[in-house]
Amino acid sequence: MSIRALVWGENVHEQKNKVVAELYPNGMHSCIAESLNSDAQITATTATLQEPEHGLTESRLAETDVLLWWGHAAHGDVEDAIVERVAERVWGGMGLIVLHSGHFAKIFKRLMGTPCNLTWREAGERERLWLTSRNHPIAAGLPDHFELENEEMYGEPFGIPEPLETVFVSWFQGGEVFRSGVTYKRGAGNVFYFRPGHETYPTYYDENVRTVLRNAVKWAHNPAARIADVNAAPNVPVSEALEPIEERGPRLHHDGEEGYR
Amino acid sequence: MSIRALVWGENVHEQKNKVVAELYPNGMHSCIAESLNSDAQITATTATLQEPEHGLTESRLAETDVLLWWGHAAHGDVEDAIVERVAERVWGGMGLIVLHSGHFAKIFKRLMGTPCNLTWREAGERERLWLTSRNHPIAAGLPDHFELENEEMYGEPFGIPEPLETVFVSWFQGGEVFRSGVTYKRGAGNVFYFRPGHETYPTYYDENVRTVLRNAVKWAHNPAARIADVNAAPNVPVSEALEPIEERGPRLHHDGEEGYR
Amino acid sequence: MSIRALVWGENVHEQKNKVVAELYPNGMHSCIAESLNSDAQITATTATLQEPEHGLTESRLAETDVLLWWGHAAHGDVEDAIVERVAERVWGGMGLIVLHSGHFAKIFKRLMGTPCNLTWREAGERERLWLTSRNHPIAAGLPDHFELENEEMYGEPFGIPEPLETVFVSWFQGGEVFRSGVTYKRGAGNVFYFRPGHETYPTYYDENVRTVLRNAVKWAHNPAARIADVNAAPNVPVSEALEPIEERGPRLHHDGEEGYR
Amino acid sequence: MSIRALVWGENVHEQKNKVVAELYPNGMHSCIAESLNSDAQITATTATLQEPEHGLTESRLAETDVLLWWGHAAHGDVEDAIVERVAERVWGGMGLIVLHSGHFAKIFKRLMGTPCNLTWREAGERERLWLTSRNHPIAAGLPDHFELENEEMYGEPFGIPEPLETVFVSWFQGGEVFRSGVTYKRGAGNVFYFRPGHETYPTYYDENVRTVLRNAVKWAHNPAARIADVNAAPNVPVSEALEPIEERGPRLHHDGEEGYR
Repeated sequence: MSIRALVWGENVHEQKNKVVAELYPNGMHSCIAESLNSDAQITATTATLQEPEHGLTESRLAETDVLLWWGHAAHGDVEDAIVERVAERVWGGMGLIVLHSGHFAKIFKRLMGTPCNLTWREAGERERLWLTSRNHPIAAGLPDHFELENEEMYGEPFGIPEPLETVFVSWFQGGEVFRSGVTYKRGAGNVFYFRPGHETYPTYYDENVRTVLRNAVKWAHNPAARIADVNAAPNVPVSEALEPIEERGPRLHHDGEEGYR
Repeated sequence: MSIRALVWGENVHEQKNKVVAELYPNGMHSCIAESLNSDAQITATTATLQEPEHGLTESRLAETDVLLWWGHAAHGDVEDAIVERVAERVWGGMGLIVLHSGHFAKIFKRLMGTPCNLTWREAGERERLWLTSRNHPIAAGLPDHFELENEEMYGEPFGIPEPLETVFVSWFQGGEVFRSGVTYKRGAGNVFYFRPGHETYPTYYDENVRTVLRNAVKWAHNPAARIADVNAAPNVPVSEALEPIEERGPRLHHDGEEGYR
Repeated sequence: MSIRALVWGENVHEQKNKVVAELYPNGMHSCIAESLNSDAQITATTATLQEPEHGLTESRLAETDVLLWWGHAAHGDVEDAIVERVAERVWGGMGLIVLHSGHFAKIFKRLMGTPCNLTWREAGERERLWLTSRNHPIAAGLPDHFELENEEMYGEPFGIPEPLETVFVSWFQGGEVFRSGVTYKRGAGNVFYFRPGHETYPTYYDENVRTVLRNAVKWAHNPAARIADVNAAPNVPVSEALEPIEERGPRLHHDGEEGYR
Repeated sequence: MSIRALVWGENVHEQKNKVVAELYPNGMHSCIAESLNSDAQITATTATLQEPEHGLTESRLAETDVLLWWGHAAHGDVEDAIVERVAERVWGGMGLIVLHSGHFAKIFKRLMGTPCNLTWREAGERERLWLTSRNHPIAAGLPDHFELENEEMYGEPFGIPEPLETVFVSWFQGGEVFRSGVTYKRGAGNVFYFRPGHETYPTYYDENVRTVLRNAVKWAHNPAARIADVNAAPNVPVSEALEPIEERGPRLHHDGEEGYR
């Protein structure tokens, strides 16, 4: 069975900005999904901010192996309850790939526990991505570096926790560097942040970028069954202890009582 | 100048539960602060949930190098705005030491981005902490293992991100293990979680535990000046680029405009 | 195409010790290979210390995706040149799974850069392995804990570098704990150390252990083409710089000269 | 008491190459030591390849808190036994700071367990170091970036294990990037690799570089007593088990016997 990817797009600038609309007439999410669908191992569909529950209903997420997230102008419009729902899905094992300006998406900040801030410049300058982890599955089929002739600059310091692995580091024409591809694990879910993808440039038509996204979907996919109650903190009664023990000393809780949260 | 530690105590069971009140007549926070103050390099004070703004005003936090956090029954009573204030302080460089049941404190879950759940049993069983990182500063002066004759059990899987370093792992009489001392960095702030400390046992009178807490305060202390605006994401204008570049291609933003959040 | 696993066995105690010979009449390596071959995705063969070049010729390693290593009494008999050959293969992308007493194998110490020491006791005591990373691919299909009724004890502190991920932690009847399953990446190669497997107990007949080994082979497998020259440090001439630069200042090296090593 | 730093210099090009000799008339090691000695908390001395035992006798290392290592042309002339001696000291708690071309030093490769290779170009181009971990102790007092107008280029992929922390990333004029400041822990010893320092440029006179080195010495210093036998793997007899157990099953070893290595 193929990997079920869901590409979430904010879908705002595609509607309001002529440049973006011409580049991505069906929306950036559709362009990305189309690229993923060129791989026989992936079946990609899309969802947008404007749909009920932003298209991220419980049932939709239950059928999603890997979620890709592109947002920029409307981070604040994403409902907190939906963010929490997505976070719980990630903890349960759903993969998450956060793209470009999604560094400030609620879901990314929620999972990182840090500001996720950076410096930036919109000048259409050259970006060159360097591989720092040779033969990493996310870099399969890629050379040691590749270029995007026009991109927005993001600069260090990038306000993220120390990554599990740093896969790409970017060079910018204007003099900055950036950790452009970083991996994390949150609960049972694999998380990948990938930097390129400013909406006024044709980044998601670039073959190397498309290869990264397809690789990342496969890398992020955790085939194990989703963890049912990701927040469970079960009490283990004395009578069920794996080694025989006797209760000693004073207690706060009675048998079978729930713990505090 | 000594390190300014602030011990935050929920201070609920000390008021309501006779066992806890007798063990810690001035509150657990006072017992912990007293222990820290036995070290000439540390000056410890206390704050509690019941104070205005939980005792964690902007000015108080501005004078705090390392915050210690003990909470259990009243995690839900801590105001979200105060949690966010503390998180921003940590990102700016304040150290944070989270104790025992604080694994479910809002501030810990906020900084970890994971459920922070575990299994548990309140049976006064024996816990033995093993050092997994020899000569780690947090373990200075400690043997390779030490015991607490009566403790609550916490068992794996512990729902945390992969730690920067695992310093202690606990053995429990009833058959479980637990990563009892783990470090993280969040922004410029050092974070340490330390497992022992159930309120019905005299854990915070144990000399080894006290040594860990004093060591952890020194380890968590970042002497650098606090970062002023931890969420800043400054635009770097083309005219101020470190390498001369010319603007190319279409833009979303005008000069000097703020980015989206 | 299936994953080509090669199980390397020291094959000493199977020949000299009656207990081991009865437990593993065809050698521990054969028992492990048989277990791997029960999975249609894996094709496992074996090699032993006594074969020419310890069975680890260049051509054999070139046909190996994942190498498993069991050694104990004869670590010192493994030739240094073979160890270096295996290390280079790992850097090039071959997976490596080091078993039990292999913590002191030359190849493991070579790749870790640390003493890899521990405490130990041979008393047939109970070991219970706890999962610390839920739904990790290496733990697929396993419960949160499983037991081995008779095992040798290994205790912390374990002299390894901080792992990329800690997957299992063991509880021992005699009071110790141990990080029993830890992952690393060395070059393009995935490395997994798995603790159980003392030769006088039937550990490699245990179904949970066998599941771990099969999972680990799949996890360690890097399908990318092997890196050709893992030690290459190529000079990039000024004329081939990706951005146009002019040579400035004094030089040590002439064009096309090799660097120092 | 001040931190005892020992700056080890290969001292070859200072003797043979006119450019280097004029830049560093007393050797690069002396220049670095002088810079460290400007800090009242540090007392730095020097040792060179040409001294008996390369100046790294047992007694000298016993009086060293942090060792700094600069080598390039003569890595192969460093005796293996001395390398092993230094490695054992690091495991025991001595700090180690490896500089520039020391990426190929035997001691660095020994501790990393990887090839430590990279790409390079000697063209006197501009390097700009960016801070990726704000307020890290190694970056105390530094701005978010600083420049070296003339440096050798080192490019990714850099063949190192995933660092504990990445502190600096470099931008190069010719289009490459490099992880220029990375931390590790090996045993009880803190290890820092810092990229700049080609011998034909005045890098070790740069004030920002000097600040990094002074900070790094303080960061790497582990004040705990050195671990006596870093390779010890003690047997814990059944009679001394922390929890009462009875011996069961067959054994390989007799009481008090040494384990295999």
